[in-house]
Amino acid sequence: MPERIFNFSPGPSILPYPVLQQAARDIVNFNDKGIGLIELSHRSKEFMAVADETESLIRQNLHVPDNYKVLFLQGGASSQFYMIPMNLLGNGKKATYLNTGTWSNKAIKEARLFGEIDVAYSSENSKFNRVPENNGYSVSPDSEYLYFVSNNTIYGTQYQSFPEKDSVLISDMSSDICSRPVDISKFGLIFAGAQKNMGPAGVTVVIIREDLLNNTPDNVPTMLRYSTHADKGSMFNTPPCFAIYCVGQVMKWLKENGGVEEISKINEDKASLLYNAIDSTDFYKGHAELQSRSRMNVSFNLPTPEHEAQFIAEATSVGLDGLKGHRSIGGCRASIYNAFPKEGVEKLVQFMEEFAKANG
Amino acid sequence: MPERIFNFSPGPSILPYPVLQQAARDIVNFNDKGIGLIELSHRSKEFMAVADETESLIRQNLHVPDNYKVLFLQGGASSQFYMIPMNLLGNGKKATYLNTGTWSNKAIKEARLFGEIDVAYSSENSKFNRVPENNGYSVSPDSEYLYFVSNNTIYGTQYQSFPEKDSVLISDMSSDICSRPVDISKFGLIFAGAQKNMGPAGVTVVIIREDLLNNTPDNVPTMLRYSTHADKGSMFNTPPCFAIYCVGQVMKWLKENGGVEEISKINEDKASLLYNAIDSTDFYKGHAELQSRSRMNVSFNLPTPEHEAQFIAEATSVGLDGLKGHRSIGGCRASIYNAFPKEGVEKLVQFMEEFAKANG
Repeated sequence: MPERIFNFSPGPSILPYPVLQQAARDIVNFNDKGIGLIELSHRSKEFMAVADETESLIRQNLHVPDNYKVLFLQGGASSQFYMIPMNLLGNGKKATYLNTGTWSNKAIKEARLFGEIDVAYSSENSKFNRVPENNGYSVSPDSEYLYFVSNNTIYGTQYQSFPEKDSVLISDMSSDICSRPVDISKFGLIFAGAQKNMGPAGVTVVIIREDLLNNTPDNVPTMLRYSTHADKGSMFNTPPCFAIYCVGQVMKWLKENGGVEEISKINEDKASLLYNAIDSTDFYKGHAELQSRSRMNVSFNLPTPEHEAQFIAEATSVGLDGLKGHRSIGGCRASIYNAFPKEGVEKLVQFMEEFAKANG
Repeated sequence: MPERIFNFSPGPSILPYPVLQQAARDIVNFNDKGIGLIELSHRSKEFMAVADETESLIRQNLHVPDNYKVLFLQGGASSQFYMIPMNLLGNGKKATYLNTGTWSNKAIKEARLFGEIDVAYSSENSKFNRVPENNGYSVSPDSEYLYFVSNNTIYGTQYQSFPEKDSVLISDMSSDICSRPVDISKFGLIFAGAQKNMGPAGVTVVIIREDLLNNTPDNVPTMLRYSTHADKGSMFNTPPCFAIYCVGQVMKWLKENGGVEEISKINEDKASLLYNAIDSTDFYKGHAELQSRSRMNVSFNLPTPEHEAQFIAEATSVGLDGLKGHRSIGGCRASIYNAFPKEGVEKLVQFMEEFAKANG
């Protein structure tokens, strides 16, 4: 299939095509310097400029306040599950977690190695089909922070508005960062594995308020201290240069397309098209409750698993790829991140209508 | 400068040109599937095949025995400095380290957070210009392992033969892995940041004997346990897909060019050319002692720092790039990894002769 397929993969996922084309050129010959991008020393002035520009574009797109550091780390979002409590809980302090799915569950498990963890809310009994309202839980005053996952990739749920509590907010925004406006100043720390809305796998972006850099216990290894990377501009050791470069290219593309504010409207539009298709017939059933629906990951079921398998196979054969739901929930899932074109959503909606007619 | 320059950078460093060209094609359209390499889900059959082939080629090139796991981790070699003692020392056990430069020094610092560290040898007093002979130190019987850096990128020293002691050998081979034959069965664990002889920055290859996977204390976070990644084939979470792909391409190139055995002869040849140029005049002075000289990183000085600055500037202007020594030692350094062409070494040797004549 020589043409580009529509890639609904939950991550690594679709990236803007101009970014891929530019990366292909730079990998072989960066800025016509006779050296490939991935051959550049991380301390060369060429790569330092790439890293600086990437940080600057993230700051512009997300309106990051000056008292926050932007870090490029490795190990995926999963490494933040332990780094956060390792740095912020110290010996046996307390933190509050909201459990809305697989990723918060994993974060809770790691945090328990470092302190007392209060799980103030869980939607596990309803297959994680919703996120809490602000009045649905309370946060203990001796809690160091309140941790939540802003968008749950697997279950297709998303906070429509963020928690408003008298606590340091920490959020895993891996699957919806840069998809809608966020007031960073309300947060202590947000992080995201890049491989959805920011770039390829291989770099994790951490945005941390500076006053949180100095709470780390003495026995934490150098590489696991946020302050190490903050002090050295993420250049304490060799960073994942290619992934950082790609994030910069994606951020440039985002800025040129109107930034988070504009893409947010397009994301609303794309998600509405898909949810309308689901709601317009009994054949499809959305997994998430209405008020918790994600604009990034649309999870839905068909009448039977056999219908779902057939749906996924036929969709794949017409270039609608990656629609299989996560193994922990089954069903179907359409991930429609920033770079996913509206045209592909329209094609899926049309396919859904035809499939329902033929098999309903 | 449209032509390719000769890139003597210590890492990230030169890669085989066919690898860059292939990566450029695959990034835009992987195997003509209408999807870019870095857009592929890590759990897609396409990417799983890439990861499997990469591991297989590493096993072939390095003759990795069956009772060893090959892991693709993140966080650079620097993250192994703490992961090794965190997993293998448990509470207060003892290990022995040989201090031959910056990277062993950093590893010793991190290891001291986890147990008792015996530094059995150090060449710090002679500016790390040598590595020890086997009879130059002893290893305590209650030591869990003996740790050493096989090639010291900054100082340009390298073990000509590996330690022979009754201890579990652990080696940081970041800057000489795949450059010469190694009997893996003599080691408990070897590791390497990819960005010298294996690929771009962003992945660290760890080769670990299986019996060492089960010694990790209970309080170690999931992501920091070697067993987590061994059990899941480095797919516990999203791996650094692009870097793994590139390592596979480099390993394919290496195999097609005769493997480690052939490249080892070429590396000997290239290094000899350069050391002969250094030794043939009093104008240049090698930093490393003769019996400790590295075939990967050739560190040398000129009569004065002013000569060195002029040398580096003039070399750069004729396409001999990256010859500046590390800031901790100064002088000049030519890194001539596997992918560095002999032609570039010959050009440097000619330039050195001319420069010495003009300025000596």
